[in-house]
Amino acid sequence: MKNIDLFHIGDNFNCLFVVTEDVYLHFQEMIGDKNPLHVDTDFAQRKGFKKRVMYGNILNGYISYFIGMGLPSKDVMLISQSINWKKPVYMDDQVNLEAKVSEVSEAVGIVEFKYKFRKKDNVLVASGNIQIKVF
Amino acid sequence: MKNIDLFHIGDNFNCLFVVTEDVYLHFQEMIGDKNPLHVDTDFAQRKGFKKRVMYGNILNGYISYFIGMGLPSKDVMLISQSINWKKPVYMDDQVNLEAKVSEVSEAVGIVEFKYKFRKKDNVLVASGNIQIKVF
Repeated sequence: MKNIDLFHIGDNFNCLFVVTEDVYLHFQEMIGDKNPLHVDTDFAQRKGFKKRVMYGNILNGYISYFIGMGLPSKDVMLISQSINWKKPVYMDDQVNLEAKVSEVSEAVGIVEFKYKFRKKDNVLVASGNIQIKVF
Repeated sequence: MKNIDLFHIGDNFNCLFVVTEDVYLHFQEMIGDKNPLHVDTDFAQRKGFKKRVMYGNILNGYISYFIGMGLPSKDVMLISQSINWKKPVYMDDQVNLEAKVSEVSEAVGIVEFKYKFRKKDNVLVASGNIQIKVF
C-alpha cells in the first residue's frame, strides 16, 4: 500500500490549539515583529480591537503542526498554503482547525485540503487551502 | 496625507533573514512539529535532502516581520497570504525577501504585494502574494 492511498477525498481532521502567552512570546522572539498592533494594548484598542491582536502567522504555524504530526502518514511535505484572516485572535483563545481533503492526485502524490480555523464559539477566524506532497 | 498614500504600485522592498538554530528551535517549541523531515537528518537524507529541512512556515513568519516592521506605515494588518515552496531551506541559510506592491486600492485601504524568497545564490525558494489593510 502506498502512502497516498491513506488519503481520501472528504477525510476530515480536527486539531485544537490554544494561543498561550508562551506561543505568542516564542513567535515574537523568533521573528522580532514588534508591530504595535501585537505589542501595545492601547494602540490595538484605538484601532478597534479588544486587546493586542495575536500574530496571524501563528495560525500558519499550526498548519505546520497539523501537516507534520496530524496525518495518517509522516512522509509528507508542504507545497503550498494560503490563508484569509476573518477575525482577530486574542491571547488564550482556543482555535480549532478543521481540515478536509478536497483533492487526491495519486499519479503525482499530491493531496489538497480546504481548512477553517474557528474559535470556541464557532466564529470563523481564518480559512484557506493547503497542498502537500506525499512521498 | 493618508497612510494608504505611502504605498505605490511598483514599490520594492528587501528584507534579509537567516534561519539560525535559534529561529528553528523557537518555531519547534512554539508549534511542537516534530515531523522527521525537520528533526531527523537520516530521514531527511533518505528522502533526498541534504540535511534536516527547515519548517516552511518560518518563511510565513518572516512575512509577518516584513509587514509589521518593514513598511512606511505601522498602521497595517494582514488580510491574506499565500506561499508556494520551491526549494528546501536548511539551517543557517540566508533568505532574502523581495516584495513588490502589485495593487493599491485607495477606496478600501488595501495594498497587495507579490513576493519571492531567494537564497544567497539567487535560487528561488518560495513565492506568493500578500494582502494588507492600511488603517
